[in-house]
Amino acid sequence: MSEVVAALRQTVASLHGELTRYGLVAWTAGNVSARVPGQELLVIKPSGVSYDDLAPENMIVCDLDGVVVEGDLSPSSDTAAHAYVYRAMPEVGGVVHTHSTYATAWAARGEAIPCHLTAQADEFGGEIPVGPFALIGGDDIGKGIVATLSGHRSPAVLMRNHGVFTIGKDARAAVKAAVMCEDVARTAHLARALGQPLPMAQADVDSLYDRYQNVYGQAGR
Amino acid sequence: MSEVVAALRQTVASLHGELTRYGLVAWTAGNVSARVPGQELLVIKPSGVSYDDLAPENMIVCDLDGVVVEGDLSPSSDTAAHAYVYRAMPEVGGVVHTHSTYATAWAARGEAIPCHLTAQADEFGGEIPVGPFALIGGDDIGKGIVATLSGHRSPAVLMRNHGVFTIGKDARAAVKAAVMCEDVARTAHLARALGQPLPMAQADVDSLYDRYQNVYGQAGR
Amino acid sequence: MSEVVAALRQTVASLHGELTRYGLVAWTAGNVSARVPGQELLVIKPSGVSYDDLAPENMIVCDLDGVVVEGDLSPSSDTAAHAYVYRAMPEVGGVVHTHSTYATAWAARGEAIPCHLTAQADEFGGEIPVGPFALIGGDDIGKGIVATLSGHRSPAVLMRNHGVFTIGKDARAAVKAAVMCEDVARTAHLARALGQPLPMAQADVDSLYDRYQNVYGQAGR
Amino acid sequence: MSEVVAALRQTVASLHGELTRYGLVAWTAGNVSARVPGQELLVIKPSGVSYDDLAPENMIVCDLDGVVVEGDLSPSSDTAAHAYVYRAMPEVGGVVHTHSTYATAWAARGEAIPCHLTAQADEFGGEIPVGPFALIGGDDIGKGIVATLSGHRSPAVLMRNHGVFTIGKDARAAVKAAVMCEDVARTAHLARALGQPLPMAQADVDSLYDRYQNVYGQAGR
Repeated sequence: MSEVVAALRQTVASLHGELTRYGLVAWTAGNVSARVPGQELLVIKPSGVSYDDLAPENMIVCDLDGVVVEGDLSPSSDTAAHAYVYRAMPEVGGVVHTHSTYATAWAARGEAIPCHLTAQADEFGGEIPVGPFALIGGDDIGKGIVATLSGHRSPAVLMRNHGVFTIGKDARAAVKAAVMCEDVARTAHLARALGQPLPMAQADVDSLYDRYQNVYGQAGR
Repeated sequence: MSEVVAALRQTVASLHGELTRYGLVAWTAGNVSARVPGQELLVIKPSGVSYDDLAPENMIVCDLDGVVVEGDLSPSSDTAAHAYVYRAMPEVGGVVHTHSTYATAWAARGEAIPCHLTAQADEFGGEIPVGPFALIGGDDIGKGIVATLSGHRSPAVLMRNHGVFTIGKDARAAVKAAVMCEDVARTAHLARALGQPLPMAQADVDSLYDRYQNVYGQAGR
Repeated sequence: MSEVVAALRQTVASLHGELTRYGLVAWTAGNVSARVPGQELLVIKPSGVSYDDLAPENMIVCDLDGVVVEGDLSPSSDTAAHAYVYRAMPEVGGVVHTHSTYATAWAARGEAIPCHLTAQADEFGGEIPVGPFALIGGDDIGKGIVATLSGHRSPAVLMRNHGVFTIGKDARAAVKAAVMCEDVARTAHLARALGQPLPMAQADVDSLYDRYQNVYGQAGR
Repeated sequence: MSEVVAALRQTVASLHGELTRYGLVAWTAGNVSARVPGQELLVIKPSGVSYDDLAPENMIVCDLDGVVVEGDLSPSSDTAAHAYVYRAMPEVGGVVHTHSTYATAWAARGEAIPCHLTAQADEFGGEIPVGPFALIGGDDIGKGIVATLSGHRSPAVLMRNHGVFTIGKDARAAVKAAVMCEDVARTAHLARALGQPLPMAQADVDSLYDRYQNVYGQAGR
């Protein structure tokens, strides 16, 4: 096992702790993966295993067709969707899937989350879009994710009647997008529950997105 | 005390930790039981004891009429309902009862939870049904559970004006059903709060249910 | 310091941990007290002290006029209300005050919580009533609590535009009532948010209340 | 590094733990600062660093124009707003910024939170006001905060489509205001979700505010 794969096993296993910390997942219903840079491989959660029991050793390494390369357990049942995204979007280094509650409520109605918050402009650059209904088991979910997010600013898609998929330059960025997606989905839900949120000018959304993507945080991190 | 009973005392005591972890219970209002395979016995929580104080030693062993066989404390006041289910449904190995908030809100209105989420199709195979109002103290609750769940895909029933009962092949499966029931009840509540969730085709619900029951997770677990 | 007072200092300090565990309090806004049996004394939280810093040593002992008898800090600013309840209701051994969110939302509208749940029938015996608006600083809050709860089954009152006071035979029972009050307030809120909860027959409410008060839990506890 | 700065590094780092404890922040989106008394300096969180990783050593010391004086990392991207407040309001010793969910939902609609709760009268002295929409990156947010809070009783402002800023005599007081702001925002949201909260007389609001500011808590703390 290469050192880079060993490091990603550790990263992917521990990043699931952010899904539980922020309450984005129930039981075993959510997963994180990372692309192995420079190799046609990904590292992903095993299927149906409790978050308490995740460890670098039981992460699964698959090729980009979702075939297991290292690991004794079956990979996440969402592996085909993750793999499709890595094949189609070479800039993506991490993928996350959750059924986080508020975001999934928007997905159940098939409604994009309109952008009424500076935090949403920062991270998503505008609305969080809805993807098609698709059945698990083939490439349909992956195709729906890629079709919706290609050329879109948002790193998150609300898959209809299903839940959230997020992408990022690495697994940590995709996890951050999943956390922020639920955060803005919840605030947007509450705002609309008692009336209409005030609109934001497109120029302001653009300005916030540009600044956040290029200035926020520590340079080089 | 047989080894199998000793192991189930441990399992039942520790599974209550999932009820508190997922916020399904307040104070002492919820309980888990397991059937002792091959014996006419069940293991259940003692009545009115704090979740912090549960341990293998204070679990109660009852026969399938709810009569205490081992244990110094009174068994859960819901023991009669658990026992009735084990007598009537030989395939059931675990039963859970909670008043989890969102699911109980649907129960208070006497409304089944319609299936608008793939996660609900996976675990429940369609809607989560409502059972009758029934008073504690005899077989009425047990009869209502069995009448509602017999021949139904759902392992969860919303007992009117009361709360949730779930069943499973073992106690862990029944706890999972209780966790997922609250999760989909909450998402369904939020989805409907701002509009109408989009319908799912029955064929898609059927396909998801079939796949989840037969493919998901690790074989043999 | 008598042994009974020492024990109650421990009990009262540690019971505040249930207020934080169940999310009933923010910052320092909630308090528990206990009557010292057979003495004209009560034990209560100091004012404005963080829940993290509570310990038996910093609990305050007051007489039943709220005058400090033991303790270097000021007692809770709600001490006058607690003391009034102990003077007027000799059967009460514990009092709790919170601004728990859902219950306080009902209090802000001045609406009693109607009884649509078996859990509410068990603990409260029917609706949870509303008390008058009253300013802090004299006996007005205490009078409002006593006027509302005297002769009422409910151990909880929703003080208008303010929050919850609960009573019990001891401090633990009053804390339980505070936990259950928020639990049923939340479920009742959610049930009504999407429609109308189904009514329960008064005879069923009476039967549940009678059973819960006399049969539930462990005898002698 | 002076002793007072060293102590404030510790205070500011640890107070971020209250933001996570009360669920006011997601990922890295919220920050606390303190003025260094008697010096033209402030201590603030570094930008984009996880709350788990905050420590006295990585806090940033800036002058009151937001220029870094001590620290290897970039300061919070909200530093300009904090600095503006300290320049304009000499009585302010602490500033907090969050996107806490319920308060931000009010901010998204541009609605002040009306005062229907004694807890709000105590801490905020009436309504919690709305400030203007302002872009990050210059003095506009700071100006909006100061314009809204100058001469206002409330230590919290809901910045439109953005989130909450709070002020206090020190950082701890500003954190308390942020915690209480979300608490009353949530209760007010729920109260209005099912009807209309009852009005409070202005004289009662005034009386509660006066008492809380002058009597509550421990003298000299």
